[in-house]
Amino acid sequence: MKFTIQKDRLVESVQDVLKAVSSRTTIPILTGIKIVASDEGVSLTGSDSDISIESFIPQRDGDLEVITIDRPGSIVLQARFFSEIVKKLPMSTVEIEVEQNHLTIIRSGSAEFNLNGLDAEEYPHLPQIEEHHAFQIPTDLLKNLIRQTVFAVSTSETRPILTGVNWKVEKGELICTATDSHRLALRKAKLDINEESSYNVVIPGKSLTELSKILDDGQDLVSIVITETQVLFKAQNVLFFSRLLDGNYPDTARLIPQESKTDVVVNTKEFLQAIDRASLLAREGRNNVVKLSADPAQSLEISSNSPEIGKVVETVQADDIKGEDLKISFSPKYMLDALKVLEGTEIHVSFTGAMRPFLLRTPNDDSILQLILPVRTY
Amino acid sequence: MKFTIQKDRLVESVQDVLKAVSSRTTIPILTGIKIVASDEGVSLTGSDSDISIESFIPQRDGDLEVITIDRPGSIVLQARFFSEIVKKLPMSTVEIEVEQNHLTIIRSGSAEFNLNGLDAEEYPHLPQIEEHHAFQIPTDLLKNLIRQTVFAVSTSETRPILTGVNWKVEKGELICTATDSHRLALRKAKLDINEESSYNVVIPGKSLTELSKILDDGQDLVSIVITETQVLFKAQNVLFFSRLLDGNYPDTARLIPQESKTDVVVNTKEFLQAIDRASLLAREGRNNVVKLSADPAQSLEISSNSPEIGKVVETVQADDIKGEDLKISFSPKYMLDALKVLEGTEIHVSFTGAMRPFLLRTPNDDSILQLILPVRTY
Repeated sequence: MKFTIQKDRLVESVQDVLKAVSSRTTIPILTGIKIVASDEGVSLTGSDSDISIESFIPQRDGDLEVITIDRPGSIVLQARFFSEIVKKLPMSTVEIEVEQNHLTIIRSGSAEFNLNGLDAEEYPHLPQIEEHHAFQIPTDLLKNLIRQTVFAVSTSETRPILTGVNWKVEKGELICTATDSHRLALRKAKLDINEESSYNVVIPGKSLTELSKILDDGQDLVSIVITETQVLFKAQNVLFFSRLLDGNYPDTARLIPQESKTDVVVNTKEFLQAIDRASLLAREGRNNVVKLSADPAQSLEISSNSPEIGKVVETVQADDIKGEDLKISFSPKYMLDALKVLEGTEIHVSFTGAMRPFLLRTPNDDSILQLILPVRTY
Repeated sequence: MKFTIQKDRLVESVQDVLKAVSSRTTIPILTGIKIVASDEGVSLTGSDSDISIESFIPQRDGDLEVITIDRPGSIVLQARFFSEIVKKLPMSTVEIEVEQNHLTIIRSGSAEFNLNGLDAEEYPHLPQIEEHHAFQIPTDLLKNLIRQTVFAVSTSETRPILTGVNWKVEKGELICTATDSHRLALRKAKLDINEESSYNVVIPGKSLTELSKILDDGQDLVSIVITETQVLFKAQNVLFFSRLLDGNYPDTARLIPQESKTDVVVNTKEFLQAIDRASLLAREGRNNVVKLSADPAQSLEISSNSPEIGKVVETVQADDIKGEDLKISFSPKYMLDALKVLEGTEIHVSFTGAMRPFLLRTPNDDSILQLILPVRTY
């Protein structure tokens, strides 16, 4: 293998596939990045066996020659060293040549690195996925779907299925749900898809977070292919594979209250900042809770109390309060997480009493919903 | 005590004095910030008993009233909570009022915090320093003196005196020296001071690092007062006290070679970047060294070798090489640290053989000098 490549393009692709490479792997070759040079271009692959990322750099970009291929071939190089080396090379082009015994020479200007490579034939094959049933989502929408749900997955391995986000496709609609059993995030989107298609899978939260990082901003379509054990996201020159989680996702629909006793509409930013201030003292308290009291005749009062340090109380002017008086306690962290992903200047909070889960929504938008369980305080 | 103050000014001062507050202190009241309000303004103090910082906010700034003092007084508030609270307050002004039993009310907009304060009388007094013998240094020069030496102090407590920077004033000149016994950094500066004045003290490296962080950029003069056990830096509205280290600083002058056998002049940036690249593979090697070979007939060759990973070799064009052939090994970290603080586009490196310390200097500038001990390799 021998080729010369624009350094910036190589650095960018290496950074993308590096996101799948873990230093804590039981398969030594997976600490490497696989490089394959063909007449069409150079492809890089990284994998931790849960996630695999393939980035392709085409030989030409319009009129610009990005790569000069002298001799096609392949090699696996230590990801950590290779990525740091290419970043620090002195010139704008890099020559990579594989000699005997997988010895790889990286040349740029007067710098010459010799790295001991590994046989690319030993590198695990990526999953073979048939693409009959792909559907498309614009990149910006996909990133929002992820951002507005993935924070709510469980970080505990007690119920592994809850560490993933449930993706359900039904009647032309995608419903993404995440819950750690203390709060739940739900986001829906209409798909341009055959109404007959239906899927119900659980994608690891970590995979979605990494996917989100390598997707560019913009509205380019990402193709999504779901199989029994794998999901593949295909963006411009990038393939992102993730395994799916085994098991059945719990039926969360029945957790969502269908009626409410107290309804509040309030400015998102003012509410968020007041909760944030109250959380400063909540952190120390034994219960780590913030209290909210809503009185239809008046406003919202947000308070917290940490006996040794002090207390805080703040009034937030609500745009509307309807229904019964209410005093409720909750984790400020869950509340802040939910408020940060809700769009719009106003939010609508629906309570069904101090001991029942409550809902946060954007008024007049049923595509997003956040549910939080209150904390019992006496 | 009761006053109203511009939030931004308070936040800024709190951030400054916070740098002296440690959460790991054996004196509980030192986890707090002391606040004193007088008719002239408000002063804040933080201390970990090694370093003490006092920041004064004058009641007026030109025509602008920064503080409205209703009732002078004093209080000590938990630093961690107080600093986070003031940062997150909703309005541009803050009212702080102390009621009975040191209960302190912090009001801003509709937010009201009640914090349990402590009696300011219990807070340790700052050192009393007589200012007969102050000398002045412009802020930018002071920050350079610190930056160009403090990185070389020892991080090990085996010889505590080496964790500080030696400040010696003699014949109108300040000489700052730091060494961890593997490398040495020296920086001199002419002072506008009586030629008779002489000092020889050791200032903890940590104190100088923190001082550097709170000094603004610019050329305002900082007054420096040195006593037997303390040093005081007086900048605009900030007093910075540090204890001095006990003991005699070693005589380092005899370590500095007075002659050389190989002299190299090279572009600082090219040399630094080549060392940086070579260090990528040095990190893994058992010796963690980079090799340099200088041949007056040719150029500099920089190389490193890590048997399992690979090797790197690079040629750097020197502007001048004089004297004997040389092969030498050194820690790339020490070399990079030294190169980063040397000013100018060129540096002059003087070697006295492979086993002797070598010097790095800016050509035609004897105010700064970096010394590095080589590593013996076979």
